[in-house]
Amino acid sequence: MKLPHHPHRIERLKALQKALKTDAFLFTSPSAVKWLSGYFYNFETGTSPFQLLPAALFIIPDQFMCLVIADNESLSQQEHGLSLTIKPYQSYVHEKPLDYSNQFINKLNEVLKESGMTGAQIGIEHDTLPFVVSQFLQSKYPAISLIDVSDEITNLKAIKDDDEIECIRQAARLCDIGQTALHKYGKQGISELELFNLIRLDIESSAGTRVPLMADLISGARTSTGGGLPGNRKIMEGDVLLSDLTPCLNGYWGDSCNTMIIGEPAAEHRKTFALVKEALEIAINAIRPGIRAMDIDKLMRSHIGNFPHHGGHGVGTKYHEEPRITPYNDLEIAEGMVIALEPAIYTNDYGIRLEHMVVVTKSGCELLTEFQHCIQNNS
Amino acid sequence: MKLPHHPHRIERLKALQKALKTDAFLFTSPSAVKWLSGYFYNFETGTSPFQLLPAALFIIPDQFMCLVIADNESLSQQEHGLSLTIKPYQSYVHEKPLDYSNQFINKLNEVLKESGMTGAQIGIEHDTLPFVVSQFLQSKYPAISLIDVSDEITNLKAIKDDDEIECIRQAARLCDIGQTALHKYGKQGISELELFNLIRLDIESSAGTRVPLMADLISGARTSTGGGLPGNRKIMEGDVLLSDLTPCLNGYWGDSCNTMIIGEPAAEHRKTFALVKEALEIAINAIRPGIRAMDIDKLMRSHIGNFPHHGGHGVGTKYHEEPRITPYNDLEIAEGMVIALEPAIYTNDYGIRLEHMVVVTKSGCELLTEFQHCIQNNS
Repeated sequence: MKLPHHPHRIERLKALQKALKTDAFLFTSPSAVKWLSGYFYNFETGTSPFQLLPAALFIIPDQFMCLVIADNESLSQQEHGLSLTIKPYQSYVHEKPLDYSNQFINKLNEVLKESGMTGAQIGIEHDTLPFVVSQFLQSKYPAISLIDVSDEITNLKAIKDDDEIECIRQAARLCDIGQTALHKYGKQGISELELFNLIRLDIESSAGTRVPLMADLISGARTSTGGGLPGNRKIMEGDVLLSDLTPCLNGYWGDSCNTMIIGEPAAEHRKTFALVKEALEIAINAIRPGIRAMDIDKLMRSHIGNFPHHGGHGVGTKYHEEPRITPYNDLEIAEGMVIALEPAIYTNDYGIRLEHMVVVTKSGCELLTEFQHCIQNNS
Repeated sequence: MKLPHHPHRIERLKALQKALKTDAFLFTSPSAVKWLSGYFYNFETGTSPFQLLPAALFIIPDQFMCLVIADNESLSQQEHGLSLTIKPYQSYVHEKPLDYSNQFINKLNEVLKESGMTGAQIGIEHDTLPFVVSQFLQSKYPAISLIDVSDEITNLKAIKDDDEIECIRQAARLCDIGQTALHKYGKQGISELELFNLIRLDIESSAGTRVPLMADLISGARTSTGGGLPGNRKIMEGDVLLSDLTPCLNGYWGDSCNTMIIGEPAAEHRKTFALVKEALEIAINAIRPGIRAMDIDKLMRSHIGNFPHHGGHGVGTKYHEEPRITPYNDLEIAEGMVIALEPAIYTNDYGIRLEHMVVVTKSGCELLTEFQHCIQNNS
């Protein structure tokens, strides 16, 4: 499969509009809202008890673009300096009962009327469009039809614009800072949670604010499973220590993994580490426009044997998106794709996984993460 | 308004079933799923790219209870030791394209058939039921009708069962640990983010795992706004330091706020602090079954003047729920409610907010958070 290439994401959306004969789009997933509007909100504390959705984006490409946003999100919106119409809906209020669902719907209704789209074909995301909204649309405007465009958006997002690559590059800097901190603080006697919090502090201090951070941070035998949250286990001499750091900076993700040995590595650890590192290098050297995702995946598995997860994945406003570097995926790699590669070997006793993130160029690829994969403490 | 009191949450759900003539319920919000099934998942890294919903709960009270759960969530489910039917749906897979929405719907379809509810009145949550699910239900089973029960569930959740109070008590312990850490580490020269990460480390080490943590952690003039994320600002002599810590332990929230002065407090700071502390004590002393939420709110505002947020709120599987302690709310306080009280004074230059969490008893209330509100470093 080959993706049609349009220079910018709004052009790609226009092509989709034409192909599907949709008049407009209503996006409700955080990742699509970020992708098209630039608007991001921190999700670390879960669903807000004061909002239907933090934000929804209504677009007629090149004509109309409006963000319906919870009014208690508006400060961050101003900080982001977005250039589009904002309709804030009442969310938190203490002088009367909460009524955010109706408030959202009233604003969306204004948008539909202003845009003249009350009888339109509207592209939506069926996983994240709430029933309360679809019910309103279908009962109030029976002429509207809702068409799921989730799969199409997934494909469109695979190729990044320059401004997106710059955002991901900044998230990759946070990966570098985190993996450097791993070597700085990853010593005998520290607990996984203590180490994790020191790593996170370095990342957050660099960003100047809280940073959502997905992380596998595991030591000893637990590395054989490949993943898990940090716990109170104290790191010991001879331990394998696996650190997969996936931070989200202002809506774009970075991804990285390093594995190190505390103290002097055994010969087997050195051998396994070297094999995985070679597999990663083979994949990085092979990436160029035109090669299929499955071929990159196969190159890694041929070198180190099979492992129970993808060989890599696209990264953007989701931490896992197209191109999936997997055995089945015949998608052709194209310039502008951002790919994390993460070959691994897991034995009964330990696991070693190494990951770098690259952006595909005209003739090959460029590393986005720049830290060194090093089996021994290098700080 | 007075809530009807049923001894346990499943009894309350049965009463609701009878009152609304619903046959069954399909819950899709994390808070309702946790409330009725005990099932919790960590939400700190946002929407999973591999799941439609982490979990959905289908219930016919006393007859049928089934959790449809993403199969990459199953380990944590086993850890929780839930006693109900589990139907895992395929979520992450690398050997073929992702197909989690269809997989979820196939499992839900099995549940409907097994339970015989293919022509039922089903109570749902209209904010969190995805369109892809409602569309399936309405097209495949036109005899099914969907009835929103969100408001009713909000009311039922206000009164906690004993096991819930125990869970909230454990989350309150994390608040105590965090507020103790504030005094231990809140010194001149440390940045807000450094302080925040030390507080979080103490909380997470106590829990033995990562803990979702909502927090206002602000110093100096920014305290006049009442809230905000920690940043790189270094804390200085004479600063007001406000710390609102809201951790989530295994699905139940705790809540707490302290404000301290770095160094010797000025006379005005002492006076303001004392006033707010009195307001908090007045409210705690007044809470008992039968008093209305609005009366507690009024007692605080009468003592310290108006402030731009609620006087308090219920806490449970959401960090803000009924009873809202607000000027309009005539809901009668009842035994088993868990309430966070948070009176505050904000001036142009600084803000002081103090918060404790209580559980309502037969004749009054009992403190759940036990840390001391102390204006000066007491470590």
